[in-house]
Amino acid sequence: MKTLIKNGTVVNSTGTATADVLIDGDIIAAVLAPGSTLLGFDIERNVDTVIDAAGKYVIPGGIDAHTHMQMPFGGTEASDTFETGTRAAAWGGTTSIVDFVVQYAGENVLDQYAAWQDKARGECAIDYGFHQILSDVQDSSLVAMDELVNEGVSSFKLFMAYKGVFLSDDGQIVKAMQKASSNGSMIMMHAENGSVIDLLVQQAIAAGNTTPYYHGLTRPWQAEEEATHRAIMLANLTGAPLYVVHVSAKQAVEQIAIARDRGQNVFGETCPQYLYLSLEDQLGAQSDEWGTFEGAKWVCSTPLRSKAEGHQHHMWQSLRTNDIQMVSTDHCPFCMKGQKDMGLTDFSKIPNGIGSVEHRMDLLYQGVVDKQISLERWVEVTSTTPARMFGMYGKKGVIQPGADGDVVIYDPNGHTSIGVDKTHHMNMDYSAWEGYEIDGHVDTVLSRGKVVIDNNQYLGAKGDGKYIKRGLSQYLI
Amino acid sequence: MKTLIKNGTVVNSTGTATADVLIDGDIIAAVLAPGSTLLGFDIERNVDTVIDAAGKYVIPGGIDAHTHMQMPFGGTEASDTFETGTRAAAWGGTTSIVDFVVQYAGENVLDQYAAWQDKARGECAIDYGFHQILSDVQDSSLVAMDELVNEGVSSFKLFMAYKGVFLSDDGQIVKAMQKASSNGSMIMMHAENGSVIDLLVQQAIAAGNTTPYYHGLTRPWQAEEEATHRAIMLANLTGAPLYVVHVSAKQAVEQIAIARDRGQNVFGETCPQYLYLSLEDQLGAQSDEWGTFEGAKWVCSTPLRSKAEGHQHHMWQSLRTNDIQMVSTDHCPFCMKGQKDMGLTDFSKIPNGIGSVEHRMDLLYQGVVDKQISLERWVEVTSTTPARMFGMYGKKGVIQPGADGDVVIYDPNGHTSIGVDKTHHMNMDYSAWEGYEIDGHVDTVLSRGKVVIDNNQYLGAKGDGKYIKRGLSQYLI
Amino acid sequence: MKTLIKNGTVVNSTGTATADVLIDGDIIAAVLAPGSTLLGFDIERNVDTVIDAAGKYVIPGGIDAHTHMQMPFGGTEASDTFETGTRAAAWGGTTSIVDFVVQYAGENVLDQYAAWQDKARGECAIDYGFHQILSDVQDSSLVAMDELVNEGVSSFKLFMAYKGVFLSDDGQIVKAMQKASSNGSMIMMHAENGSVIDLLVQQAIAAGNTTPYYHGLTRPWQAEEEATHRAIMLANLTGAPLYVVHVSAKQAVEQIAIARDRGQNVFGETCPQYLYLSLEDQLGAQSDEWGTFEGAKWVCSTPLRSKAEGHQHHMWQSLRTNDIQMVSTDHCPFCMKGQKDMGLTDFSKIPNGIGSVEHRMDLLYQGVVDKQISLERWVEVTSTTPARMFGMYGKKGVIQPGADGDVVIYDPNGHTSIGVDKTHHMNMDYSAWEGYEIDGHVDTVLSRGKVVIDNNQYLGAKGDGKYIKRGLSQYLI
Amino acid sequence: MKTLIKNGTVVNSTGTATADVLIDGDIIAAVLAPGSTLLGFDIERNVDTVIDAAGKYVIPGGIDAHTHMQMPFGGTEASDTFETGTRAAAWGGTTSIVDFVVQYAGENVLDQYAAWQDKARGECAIDYGFHQILSDVQDSSLVAMDELVNEGVSSFKLFMAYKGVFLSDDGQIVKAMQKASSNGSMIMMHAENGSVIDLLVQQAIAAGNTTPYYHGLTRPWQAEEEATHRAIMLANLTGAPLYVVHVSAKQAVEQIAIARDRGQNVFGETCPQYLYLSLEDQLGAQSDEWGTFEGAKWVCSTPLRSKAEGHQHHMWQSLRTNDIQMVSTDHCPFCMKGQKDMGLTDFSKIPNGIGSVEHRMDLLYQGVVDKQISLERWVEVTSTTPARMFGMYGKKGVIQPGADGDVVIYDPNGHTSIGVDKTHHMNMDYSAWEGYEIDGHVDTVLSRGKVVIDNNQYLGAKGDGKYIKRGLSQYLI
Repeated sequence: MKTLIKNGTVVNSTGTATADVLIDGDIIAAVLAPGSTLLGFDIERNVDTVIDAAGKYVIPGGIDAHTHMQMPFGGTEASDTFETGTRAAAWGGTTSIVDFVVQYAGENVLDQYAAWQDKARGECAIDYGFHQILSDVQDSSLVAMDELVNEGVSSFKLFMAYKGVFLSDDGQIVKAMQKASSNGSMIMMHAENGSVIDLLVQQAIAAGNTTPYYHGLTRPWQAEEEATHRAIMLANLTGAPLYVVHVSAKQAVEQIAIARDRGQNVFGETCPQYLYLSLEDQLGAQSDEWGTFEGAKWVCSTPLRSKAEGHQHHMWQSLRTNDIQMVSTDHCPFCMKGQKDMGLTDFSKIPNGIGSVEHRMDLLYQGVVDKQISLERWVEVTSTTPARMFGMYGKKGVIQPGADGDVVIYDPNGHTSIGVDKTHHMNMDYSAWEGYEIDGHVDTVLSRGKVVIDNNQYLGAKGDGKYIKRGLSQYLI
Repeated sequence: MKTLIKNGTVVNSTGTATADVLIDGDIIAAVLAPGSTLLGFDIERNVDTVIDAAGKYVIPGGIDAHTHMQMPFGGTEASDTFETGTRAAAWGGTTSIVDFVVQYAGENVLDQYAAWQDKARGECAIDYGFHQILSDVQDSSLVAMDELVNEGVSSFKLFMAYKGVFLSDDGQIVKAMQKASSNGSMIMMHAENGSVIDLLVQQAIAAGNTTPYYHGLTRPWQAEEEATHRAIMLANLTGAPLYVVHVSAKQAVEQIAIARDRGQNVFGETCPQYLYLSLEDQLGAQSDEWGTFEGAKWVCSTPLRSKAEGHQHHMWQSLRTNDIQMVSTDHCPFCMKGQKDMGLTDFSKIPNGIGSVEHRMDLLYQGVVDKQISLERWVEVTSTTPARMFGMYGKKGVIQPGADGDVVIYDPNGHTSIGVDKTHHMNMDYSAWEGYEIDGHVDTVLSRGKVVIDNNQYLGAKGDGKYIKRGLSQYLI
Repeated sequence: MKTLIKNGTVVNSTGTATADVLIDGDIIAAVLAPGSTLLGFDIERNVDTVIDAAGKYVIPGGIDAHTHMQMPFGGTEASDTFETGTRAAAWGGTTSIVDFVVQYAGENVLDQYAAWQDKARGECAIDYGFHQILSDVQDSSLVAMDELVNEGVSSFKLFMAYKGVFLSDDGQIVKAMQKASSNGSMIMMHAENGSVIDLLVQQAIAAGNTTPYYHGLTRPWQAEEEATHRAIMLANLTGAPLYVVHVSAKQAVEQIAIARDRGQNVFGETCPQYLYLSLEDQLGAQSDEWGTFEGAKWVCSTPLRSKAEGHQHHMWQSLRTNDIQMVSTDHCPFCMKGQKDMGLTDFSKIPNGIGSVEHRMDLLYQGVVDKQISLERWVEVTSTTPARMFGMYGKKGVIQPGADGDVVIYDPNGHTSIGVDKTHHMNMDYSAWEGYEIDGHVDTVLSRGKVVIDNNQYLGAKGDGKYIKRGLSQYLI
Repeated sequence: MKTLIKNGTVVNSTGTATADVLIDGDIIAAVLAPGSTLLGFDIERNVDTVIDAAGKYVIPGGIDAHTHMQMPFGGTEASDTFETGTRAAAWGGTTSIVDFVVQYAGENVLDQYAAWQDKARGECAIDYGFHQILSDVQDSSLVAMDELVNEGVSSFKLFMAYKGVFLSDDGQIVKAMQKASSNGSMIMMHAENGSVIDLLVQQAIAAGNTTPYYHGLTRPWQAEEEATHRAIMLANLTGAPLYVVHVSAKQAVEQIAIARDRGQNVFGETCPQYLYLSLEDQLGAQSDEWGTFEGAKWVCSTPLRSKAEGHQHHMWQSLRTNDIQMVSTDHCPFCMKGQKDMGLTDFSKIPNGIGSVEHRMDLLYQGVVDKQISLERWVEVTSTTPARMFGMYGKKGVIQPGADGDVVIYDPNGHTSIGVDKTHHMNMDYSAWEGYEIDGHVDTVLSRGKVVIDNNQYLGAKGDGKYIKRGLSQYLI
């Protein structure tokens, strides 16, 4: 299959080019000056398909480096399977995800890795890779870290919260970091002080404060700032690179910025919810169906932050200043009925998570329209940096010869209305983004050279997606 | 003229690709997966020239955004003409310079601009653009700023030192910044407190401290830090983008970093001399020919800084952390005999300047070898960011279809010995870099598709270089 | 004259004591455990006067280190003479002022000093000292600085604004700082960038923006922050101690805090107007008599700052954290009729100044009531630190044997209503503090052992006040 | 007993006064202008004792707010009893200590408090108070906190290290802080990350690194900085005042400074060992008797820090800038024979502690001689601030009527040689300060009016010292 995308504006992270893109099989074969001929050779006549992208942006497919498809959590499981979740991603212009193998405390890391490969194999609409969660840091886990790097799993996520489930204590964190420092892998961190949060939750419940709003109040910014700083200092001690996931508090960003200013390899990821949504939104959420429990739709961790305190404003600024380097979704969807409603009378029982894998590219593009970020920065934070950060660059995150044919044609004159009955393809009975209107549209999506979305139709198939064997981070200084 | 550069490693600022580059006439026509055929079409047979770059880096030609060819200063003139200086640049892998039109106080801006266009026209070996120096900010100068933007001069340099020659007072600076803020142009700043320096120089001379070493001592870091902060604050007041030239003090970098952290469009340039050379070097310089006046070879402003204070170390770190965004040379050569020696008995009479236009690409590549910066960062700070900073990106600073055929083939297995009798092509009777050994070599240089350097031969001609009509900065946030 | 103040709560800057204070002649003879007897000796019977201070605070008399009595400025003269101004000060619990000898550019420093001594001699109700203003830094002025230190004038004020009137350029500032560094004196700085302000004023007037509100808009915080940082850096270069007068912008405070954190001898003074009043107040000021020109009542420099930007909040915090060390008034009163109204159609013609010398102790005590500062801190910022800062401690600023009998008995159960027809004794036809209600009252004031205010009566006389020959600062680290 | 100390220079934290001090019984009755008469009454004739302090400093007795007399730890007990330790303190000019009641995990707080009162009662040479250690934060402990405040124990120490012995987890810390925030008490913190340290110690021992030097290497600055920041953030969350004990790392000081700059009630204590001694000293320590185990003499926690990294230099600076507020000793002595030597083959078995209670006043006075701090600051950091910090001011920490007669006469022309066979009165078989020479001497010490040290003789008796029932901190902002 040979495809020529002609006349589009190719956007990369440093600027734009008016250029044609030729894909031959899975791979981008050439980027050419527009005109469809090369040294007299008529390219257009020698390809199978020609897509005219005039007036549109041609960008590397989105990479969502933080998803949790069908993750078992709190007695239930995230509602998107690898099949439904990756298909929704494709609809939204995302052509790669990096999901998480879960090792709960006591489990064996390599067993879990094998199990997750089994879960995903043959199910995905787009390419997928894995990070490995380490919930306790057994001696065997340290050995497994080396093996997994060889398997293409070059990043390991630890938790400073969720005691008895995910939490590693500081000594365990240091052990994993020592290993990462020696084998070149990346430590990812859920940075919230679980000990403090557990106490506040218990006190809130005891005081009868059980509605979803208290989820946010019992995870104050101090708990995030503290854990972020702690993780940075442990990374400083060990020399490990550190990637802080789902940063939501401006004070946590400041800690990251300080570390980066002194040359430490510390990175921060935020998510669309922390750019757009707020604790005040959650407080105000009310519906006939759910009453104040409506707020459960946005129960996620880290939590939504107060707009009055300026976190969202600061987060956009941090995206501009590169104090935050990239945007993932932390896609972890649960339905209101049968899942979120487990916490009807106790917010601490609500499964934590929001589903956004389908909307990330659109929501961030809206940031371009709103002058929050530049067009180039949009591509950088959604695709180029994720690829570099997690060892995929060259194949992913860029439009250049030799790269995979993961290309999105985005129409700045299109429009997208988000909502359960509108563009929603995720397996959720609500949308966290209901009613959001986007001044742009994902027109066409190619995954390794195959058109999987076009003209508002899904043309792909389960199993199209291949496993991405990742290398070490290409973003270290 | 059609040229194929095959089998090289194309390096851009985000990563590398193994790719072929096809240049058709002045312009890059395509970047292709290696193999020399496209959809069965044999490219190699259809071009005039094939260059095999196997094992070598293929990079966008260097851009030196700060040169002063044949600049009149202190009763003499910089010793490189546009002809000799740009030829030396080509030898060193630099394919574009941005030089400065000088308007001394009292002169008319547009007259000077015309004069400089006349000086350069038909003389240059490579492409050249202009910044405009404003030495006083007359009402007519403010009007001229708009006209010059239309002429492709989108950046204006002001001085906080050199009273009676270049200096603008703070009110004048604000006026120019207000104009820049409205027309989108960039303010460049020589940030040293001239009033303080003039006093210290006068006190030093009065005390009999006349050797070149006192040049540095009378321009202390406080004078640079202060002026840098002042310029930043005036830019904050007016909303103008600010580019601080030749930053040498770590404390000045810190001021820039603070401003950038809060989202202000403030940028910093450093030069090879501030990365490698020190005040202690200057103090120790002694020769049979010149005695302690040997130190005059490195009299430049801002001055060399103390290694004991850690400026050089911090400057490399700042290059890594992007607190400093790019490296230019401030190429402003003077010969020892007949020029520098005007200050034999009074350091303040020594013409200020160092010649490095030929060596910037090599000296920074040595930083890659020494693990100070990454390969990608080398390309970014020497080419991609200069292009973006000064409105040339798309044509310059990148290897992509539609860009000018400015390409350097750099051999990481080659070697370069710097010195007057070695690779030196600048019109100077000494080298500030005598004895420096580089673990790499500029093999081939193409300027707009024409091979101008190859096999250690200059193949270009006077007048090859064209004027670059620049747009507005593409680097603002 | 022997006086016993008994049963009061003596407040000093580190805490309180229930103690009696015995004054013998000019001097405090003893501080004693309450009870009026010592080793069986009946003190009460052996003194002339007994004052019962039960339930009241006994504090060292206030020291206002920044006043401008009868200062010639802008074609008029501050409306309080040394006689009226110091009497008003006494009414308000202030027993010492440090006023400014003015040397305008071109005048001789020592001549001016002599003239000011003549003006004040025999006129003052309370003790007075002098700072010396240096408006240009002539060689003779540098010599005079040594002589003045011997005369008890150990602090020298420079201006970074008011070109052609007061302004010193940076080289001149450095010269004065070099001298201060060598003779141990203090440099005081009016830190606003005059060059920028002059431009903005000129642009505002040209645009028809002539009302008093534009006074504030044309002196933006950036102009203060910039000059503050510049002064700090010049002090860093020379090693001179630096005292920044009338700090109003929170960003300027931050610069002071940074310098102090690194151990530099930099100090900041604020004034009551920057703690309580705002630019928004000035914008809203309107009266039948004056219309929007009502705002002229608060035209002072530095100007009132925006409450929305949080300057006042930050200033109180800085008083608590000791980033600001003391509070003076910058008392420089002008009447609306015949003085302020010189600027009816052009705000730049309004004489700059506010009169507060009478109200400082009360206004700051209100900060105690409002929990902004502690009782001890009240005494520290209004008396103890001013004494230490300017070389008067031991005689002033403390209640201890050997100190001058400058004592205020302050009633926390009293009340003071401020206003022209109420407690106002300054020679002004309006009050900048009209309508302010204070939850406390100055009951009794002793100046060098003589009761000058008691029972709402002035019992002193013109000429009671003596010249204070000050030593070097006792507050340096 | 009536005593007149005449002709001395009374030093307090804001300045000095030439004054006589009259003590009547336990209490200071008056501070008087020198001359020995008051209103004609001859004081000298009416007292029992006259001490001539001409040429000497008269200062409030030292307060050592951090001692551990006869503390059970690691299977042994600190070698100074309340009797020997307080007597040694008196020798060194310290007239009050605040020791720690120890509650190990599982024990009952009030039981322990009673036990410690029993231990100290009738034993002490000088006055003593107690802090309470909380090693786990049981519900009953929270109740006890209120009771203890009523008992005069207004400060509670928690540990972030020593798992299973002292350590509280973060949730427990928050619970104690919530209580402190409500009852006004102070939280004291041993801020080191125990989890990290335990791992590093275990790794060092496993690697055969067993000498005392590894004590320091396994407690890196990152572990202290991290815990300090964490404690600050938890205090920020709860509103509790926080006092960080024995700060030794400059990075920890920076965290304290940041918190203080934003107005948080955070305080830092350092100890003489962190001002004078270094990790390099420990590395170099070697003796015939002990070999490299000599270094055990300085095994304390936090550990000695590297001089090359500049901690000691920064600590003196922080004392000057008030980023560190006071100096205690953390006096916790162990003999080399029979105690320290428990760790001969394993540094982790060495009892942690240094004995300095006798030398603190001298060592800090040497800082005055060396121009590190001012005379006034000496009194402030050793007496006035400790009194204010821990609710004793008025009775302690100041020379004023009504205060306890705790007075030291210090001779700046005297000399003190420190060493086991010289001035040493502590119950230790070595001195951590062997060979230190002090340019000053404690001449006379009065404790509540009784002369206990004079003319190099101890004149006091066991049981002279009384329990200090402390109030809440008087140092909060």
